[in-house]
Amino acid sequence: MRVAFQGEVGAYSEQAAVSFFGAGIELLPLPDFRSIFEAVAQDRAHAAVVPIENSLAGSVHQNYDLLLEFRLPITGEIYLRIRHHLMALPGVRKQDIRRVISHPQALEQCREFLQQWPDIEIVPYYDTAGSAKRLREANLRDTAAIASHQAALEYDLNILASEIESDHQNFTRFLTIEKQENIPDEDGKTSIVFATKDIPGALFKSLAVFALRDINLQKLESRPLLGRPFQYLFYLDFEGSLRDEACRNALNHLGEITRFLQVLGSYRKGQFV
Amino acid sequence: MRVAFQGEVGAYSEQAAVSFFGAGIELLPLPDFRSIFEAVAQDRAHAAVVPIENSLAGSVHQNYDLLLEFRLPITGEIYLRIRHHLMALPGVRKQDIRRVISHPQALEQCREFLQQWPDIEIVPYYDTAGSAKRLREANLRDTAAIASHQAALEYDLNILASEIESDHQNFTRFLTIEKQENIPDEDGKTSIVFATKDIPGALFKSLAVFALRDINLQKLESRPLLGRPFQYLFYLDFEGSLRDEACRNALNHLGEITRFLQVLGSYRKGQFV
Repeated sequence: MRVAFQGEVGAYSEQAAVSFFGAGIELLPLPDFRSIFEAVAQDRAHAAVVPIENSLAGSVHQNYDLLLEFRLPITGEIYLRIRHHLMALPGVRKQDIRRVISHPQALEQCREFLQQWPDIEIVPYYDTAGSAKRLREANLRDTAAIASHQAALEYDLNILASEIESDHQNFTRFLTIEKQENIPDEDGKTSIVFATKDIPGALFKSLAVFALRDINLQKLESRPLLGRPFQYLFYLDFEGSLRDEACRNALNHLGEITRFLQVLGSYRKGQFV
Repeated sequence: MRVAFQGEVGAYSEQAAVSFFGAGIELLPLPDFRSIFEAVAQDRAHAAVVPIENSLAGSVHQNYDLLLEFRLPITGEIYLRIRHHLMALPGVRKQDIRRVISHPQALEQCREFLQQWPDIEIVPYYDTAGSAKRLREANLRDTAAIASHQAALEYDLNILASEIESDHQNFTRFLTIEKQENIPDEDGKTSIVFATKDIPGALFKSLAVFALRDINLQKLESRPLLGRPFQYLFYLDFEGSLRDEACRNALNHLGEITRFLQVLGSYRKGQFV
């Protein structure tokens, strides 16, 4: 099974792919999100993992756009705790290090750890796994990187300090996409996108179709549209799958009162890893 | 008036600050978001501008956390169209360029433009304004940067191609924060954060307090809490300010049925620039 993901080898997306599909998969790293949707659409990969929201950085709206554009169904999800580690080449000790490189978000998330080390130079880099790769490729013995456990394994680096992020409430939700849907009989969850009509209380009425059927909501997010200040897209996840009659009825009801409605997929609820 | 922002001189945040407060302000660039909140709290800046959501990349949850932590009121907002430009040192022509550097998000957003130029090397950099600064500091005559108009002015670069992003629906909403609130009499908007009780239909009941008073919602977003799958924070913006009785009543009513409620600020609705 070949699974596409965005980023360098050793990226958090790779960890999500391995956690979800198992260690036996073949990995296909690609440079951007569009390429991984194309790889699945064109049968160059059986599946892809895409980050859809991070607990600190928010939703990745671009991937919602790609889900709408490619119409590839969501077939699963996984919540990955983002654990940042400080790593360096084997033999390098903490006192040898003059510089720490990583993605600006990772540097910011490890700010408290780095502040205890006031004479260190902090250098932003374009990618976490890329910063680990850089140590290895340039044989930097005065520099450490902040990246994933997977990146340390991949580039044969030693972890000098583990879980150095200040806020352990840092996780990313990844979706898996495939060509065929995979609707579960139980523990299901469904993701939809809809746009309300321009009428008073439109969102309230939209949520009533779920509340009146005792369907629990899992995520709700509005997305403003530029220059159309009274028009929004809504992303909604609810408990239950398209195999449940109440869910199908709620979606039919929602279709009556919205301008636009698309189901992105019904899939089994994900685990935290 | 001194205004703090995150990033290098020439950042999109600087454009937002100048658009909102006018060209006469003194600018205080700082390396991270926490520093700009600290600058306002400690009277080293009169105000700060913070990005809170981008139409492609989503909400900046970290800045919501800092709003809750510092309790500095939101005093205004502005929507900035993100226009990416290709720029190089004066005298450099497009045919001299072998390499384009910028933040990975900007490179991705200009993918269609860059694809028309197949022999170019694309190199991710930590920051858009930082990539413009790099051309000037290293006197790179075979490299172009993708950054803002403000960055081209700041580092005295020539714009070789304007508005090269594929999706012109790319804008960022910035908030201004100050020490004193600034509640308008009209055209008001209020931002709140709340957490529902763990009861069926909790969100639906929360929205009823606005729908029953004909108060329009402007933004609604749930944020999951790690390891507590049935607990969420909600970010909500609604039309009207704390000077409106209906809004005050709605908030009192919401307080009765939520676990947690905090007003982040009442301020005048922002413009698109």
